[in-house]
Amino acid sequence: MLVKRLTIIGVGLIGGSIARALKRINACDEIIGCGRNVANLETAIELGVIDKYETQIDRAVANSDLIIVAVPLRSIAGIFKTISKEISPDTIITDVGSAKASVIADAKQYLGQHFPQFVPGHPIAGTEKSGVAASFAELFEDHKVILTPVAETNPAAVETVTLMWQKIGATVVKMSVAQHDEILAATSHLPHLLAYSLVNTLNQMNPEIFEFAAGGFRDFTRIASSDPTMWHDISLSNRDAILKMLGLFRNQLDDLTKAIQQGDSSEIKDIFSRAKIARDQSLC
Amino acid sequence: MLVKRLTIIGVGLIGGSIARALKRINACDEIIGCGRNVANLETAIELGVIDKYETQIDRAVANSDLIIVAVPLRSIAGIFKTISKEISPDTIITDVGSAKASVIADAKQYLGQHFPQFVPGHPIAGTEKSGVAASFAELFEDHKVILTPVAETNPAAVETVTLMWQKIGATVVKMSVAQHDEILAATSHLPHLLAYSLVNTLNQMNPEIFEFAAGGFRDFTRIASSDPTMWHDISLSNRDAILKMLGLFRNQLDDLTKAIQQGDSSEIKDIFSRAKIARDQSLC
Repeated sequence: MLVKRLTIIGVGLIGGSIARALKRINACDEIIGCGRNVANLETAIELGVIDKYETQIDRAVANSDLIIVAVPLRSIAGIFKTISKEISPDTIITDVGSAKASVIADAKQYLGQHFPQFVPGHPIAGTEKSGVAASFAELFEDHKVILTPVAETNPAAVETVTLMWQKIGATVVKMSVAQHDEILAATSHLPHLLAYSLVNTLNQMNPEIFEFAAGGFRDFTRIASSDPTMWHDISLSNRDAILKMLGLFRNQLDDLTKAIQQGDSSEIKDIFSRAKIARDQSLC
Repeated sequence: MLVKRLTIIGVGLIGGSIARALKRINACDEIIGCGRNVANLETAIELGVIDKYETQIDRAVANSDLIIVAVPLRSIAGIFKTISKEISPDTIITDVGSAKASVIADAKQYLGQHFPQFVPGHPIAGTEKSGVAASFAELFEDHKVILTPVAETNPAAVETVTLMWQKIGATVVKMSVAQHDEILAATSHLPHLLAYSLVNTLNQMNPEIFEFAAGGFRDFTRIASSDPTMWHDISLSNRDAILKMLGLFRNQLDDLTKAIQQGDSSEIKDIFSRAKIARDQSLC
């Protein structure tokens, strides 16, 4: 048994998938879901994802051993504020947010004395879908989960959260907050911004143009179906790292544009070859 | 029977897949493959993709009823030059190039009196792989093929090429050269350039960063594994349309960057929501 009473605040794709995976291995006595959308919570009950639900955060976290906050980044501060008044010194709190510096700042400010009980976490897993209906127990299998504990973080809390992720098939990696935020800006946030921008470029020209999109385009823009609120929050919460990546990308695109303008064959071939080699070596 | 003798110049992913698909339905008496890479042609024979091969273009096209040119765009002119001396007034020629204005200019210049026998074509199908080993008969099923005949093009030749594509499961669409080149710059060429640029951005930072890429990133950058020579040729052959699309994309990215810089929540949400709606409506 991992913990007796687990509360998941935000029973969507990620929160729902954690609940399903933990339930499958009977890791908790009781899993309580919490959210504002009652219909979604009812669906979660029907699908057997959670055992019961509460729409009030204070009731949801009462006597909980482990609280997983799985809501869009900009909603986390308010949740910390509420739960800080309800929890005991033994309660462990973790999150799944895609930017860590901002969540840690929120935790410091709103969890107060309970700050050491908070383990900043982020599973590198997901799909472009959202909502509990899209959740599945296997989502984290063979995926990495990054934890970014800080000096104050209680090692025992880190251990429990690590164990939770390992039990559901993930590999836990620890790194610094800054490193996480930079890596995610590069591998996840930037691609999403490019996909959204690409779809808008085409749509603005002629919405019928999508009819002629082949498989590559579908793959390439799948992530533009991701939840706008979630991505709005990420864009602002990891703003500095994202702006840095946008600048680096822009330099690359400028170099390529210039090479095409000038008909510089060897430069164009070099750019494409470098990318192909890097991708084939790293992701095949 | 579609034609007696078919020659495919360039037995790679596309040429090989056409051969496989036509062979499966016994659409030709004989399929001759032509290319410079003997090992690839031997593989094509072993895999049963073609009946025989020639490395000399003049020998490959002798007495051919239909010639399909399936090589990178910048190699087409030389092939036209050679075959124009070998073919009869009844031979039909078509291609599969991803840019049509440049191929038509090459055809006009090098096919001379045979220019009306050339049907400019482009199947909207492919994968990031290349070579005959990656070819498969079903590649074109339920995919669109765009033909861009011009005023001089022989209608009977267009009909034969149309029939060929329909026989192997594709839907043939006719449009103007300019429209084709613009649509492909938007839906295919631009995404490839973005994918190559993104991979180079990350690789330049830290090649180990790819370890933390999730499924979305893999999908997003799959096309960066595409053949650099093919994409070099496309970049230069469809240069004007591509530069126009790069400019439009850049405007979108600038708007988004500015909104993030300024923390303009409503603008960011609006940008993401518009993209999500456009993609969900058009590609789901």
